[in-house]
Amino acid sequence: MTAILDTTPDDDELGVPAARRRSAELERQIHERPGRFRALTGDRPTGRLHLGHYFGTLHNRVRLQNLGVDMMVLVADYQVLTDRDVADRLAEHVEDLVLDYLAVGIDPDRATVFTHSAVPALNQLLLPFLSLVSVAELGRNPTVKDEIAHSSQSAVSGLMFTYPVHQAADILFCKAGLVPVGQDQLPHLEVARTVARRFNSRYGPVFPEPEALLSAAPLLLGTDGGKMSKSRGNAIALAATADETARMIRGAKTDADRHITYDPVARPEVSSLVLLAALCLDRDPHEVAEEIGGRGAAALKAVVTDAVNDHFAPIRARRAELALDRAHIRRVLRDGNEWANAIADDTLKEVREAMKALY
Amino acid sequence: MTAILDTTPDDDELGVPAARRRSAELERQIHERPGRFRALTGDRPTGRLHLGHYFGTLHNRVRLQNLGVDMMVLVADYQVLTDRDVADRLAEHVEDLVLDYLAVGIDPDRATVFTHSAVPALNQLLLPFLSLVSVAELGRNPTVKDEIAHSSQSAVSGLMFTYPVHQAADILFCKAGLVPVGQDQLPHLEVARTVARRFNSRYGPVFPEPEALLSAAPLLLGTDGGKMSKSRGNAIALAATADETARMIRGAKTDADRHITYDPVARPEVSSLVLLAALCLDRDPHEVAEEIGGRGAAALKAVVTDAVNDHFAPIRARRAELALDRAHIRRVLRDGNEWANAIADDTLKEVREAMKALY
Repeated sequence: MTAILDTTPDDDELGVPAARRRSAELERQIHERPGRFRALTGDRPTGRLHLGHYFGTLHNRVRLQNLGVDMMVLVADYQVLTDRDVADRLAEHVEDLVLDYLAVGIDPDRATVFTHSAVPALNQLLLPFLSLVSVAELGRNPTVKDEIAHSSQSAVSGLMFTYPVHQAADILFCKAGLVPVGQDQLPHLEVARTVARRFNSRYGPVFPEPEALLSAAPLLLGTDGGKMSKSRGNAIALAATADETARMIRGAKTDADRHITYDPVARPEVSSLVLLAALCLDRDPHEVAEEIGGRGAAALKAVVTDAVNDHFAPIRARRAELALDRAHIRRVLRDGNEWANAIADDTLKEVREAMKALY
Repeated sequence: MTAILDTTPDDDELGVPAARRRSAELERQIHERPGRFRALTGDRPTGRLHLGHYFGTLHNRVRLQNLGVDMMVLVADYQVLTDRDVADRLAEHVEDLVLDYLAVGIDPDRATVFTHSAVPALNQLLLPFLSLVSVAELGRNPTVKDEIAHSSQSAVSGLMFTYPVHQAADILFCKAGLVPVGQDQLPHLEVARTVARRFNSRYGPVFPEPEALLSAAPLLLGTDGGKMSKSRGNAIALAATADETARMIRGAKTDADRHITYDPVARPEVSSLVLLAALCLDRDPHEVAEEIGGRGAAALKAVVTDAVNDHFAPIRARRAELALDRAHIRRVLRDGNEWANAIADDTLKEVREAMKALY
């Protein structure tokens, strides 16, 4: 599978080249002794996952799980509360997310799927961790800065403002050594690393410093050529039917050049479609483009539609079957939460011992 | 007992007159049916309590307890972490605080003494509550504003910034209807009231709106005439010996007028000493001053020393006896934490049901 990285000019500044080198070394170690590694990943339950999520992260999680890495998959249900529409249908969104996980191959016998709201000892870590981070540092976090810039400060909740520290608690409560991330998430991981270092130097060694496992995420655009996003209506959901998929791809933006090529810089929309087909077919996008050649956008769209529907047919069938058994979904969460609580309780006990707060 | 209120020009603005009227009505209701009320009080474990704490709050807590109010007494051990000297000796400070409580008459058979660090479900409430409060609102809190003004923003921790919301969790987790406060704490209580209102209107009625029980706190100055504070070395500790007490009062600031009167505005230092004696003797400060009359500061100090040492002799004796049995202190905390956890778990369950976050 060939993939392209979404590179930006300040790669060096973010330490991306170094993170990439380190990730290659980590991949080598994972292949050697996967059982040594625990990874923390997760999503905010804002709606059904789409193909961008699948090829961006889900696929990679299942790969790591199947290699033997201990996967912790967090449903960040407390991080959607400021979105009222989402919060009003929380249980539905959470169950949909778990359904998507199971459908793509997250295996509850090998991975732990859990929710923020059910693991008090994890959430408690937010408090000692907040004591290790200044208000100025919180305000400098890129995501938080972005949020403040895009809305007024009066619209930014205390939950959003402290969210990088809550994320540090997610990663550290289970002592995850690995966090699979895209490069835009490197600053978040840095907060978790800082919190771990400061806690250890102040109270004694409790937390391993988590490392980024930078993955080569393909840059798939939405069908309108913009950033793929559920809220823009330009994303094909994992759970979409074959017909819905065909309709969306039929309406996808292309360009005036009838000859199909793979050139992400000059022809982003056409190339994104080519890439999507290539990812589904596990082939090189240049080859896929070449085979279509002068047959134009209609032929490209037919190839993409078939590739997507073929690739996702078994996933969608599994999802439909699982959706009939909501009790199973709840059981998966209950078991995952139970295990996450056991881990969190142990860690909190260690934390309280280190802080000499066991009376 | 006569006492003076520390009044400031913006009383009206803070709603102090209204709060005072409401508190009088609440007192009437408490005397009628004390069992209807639960009150939340507490302290940060920063060191031994002093006479200012005793006459300011402890005395009132014991009074409420003895009337039959269900008292929840929080040792806010997570709210001292940014003070490194304190955090390094956390267990010692916590045990000292509990000793002070028991010595003054907090009765673990009737009151619940508990710590932040041991009640995860209480701490978890911080997260949904943070979603109900904006960053701008947090920054406007008087205590937080003060902290930011007095140190640089880089020195204000995330814990301090979110502390009014954590305090809302303290009050709301046990659905305390009453919070005995001094008037400077009214804005904090307002945060808890706001959080309760917003939570209820968004997710359904879970939390009663807590009410301030404004108490007439006597204005006792430190022995140097400044604000009484352990860190200034101008406060007489509850646990001080009779000799230490005598030495401190001997060194207390007075003024050049040999004739002793009670006039807090014109003669703050002398009047504070008179008031201290009056509080210990449960007498009117004007009468106490009159009796000393022209005998001067030395006679005043002798009266104060005797009054303090007599009043605190039984408390100090009890404290010394209790200090020999650290296992008992730990048992009190363990029992209190167990009960606080039972309450917090119940409330968190209700919260999760209201938020439809029970999967």
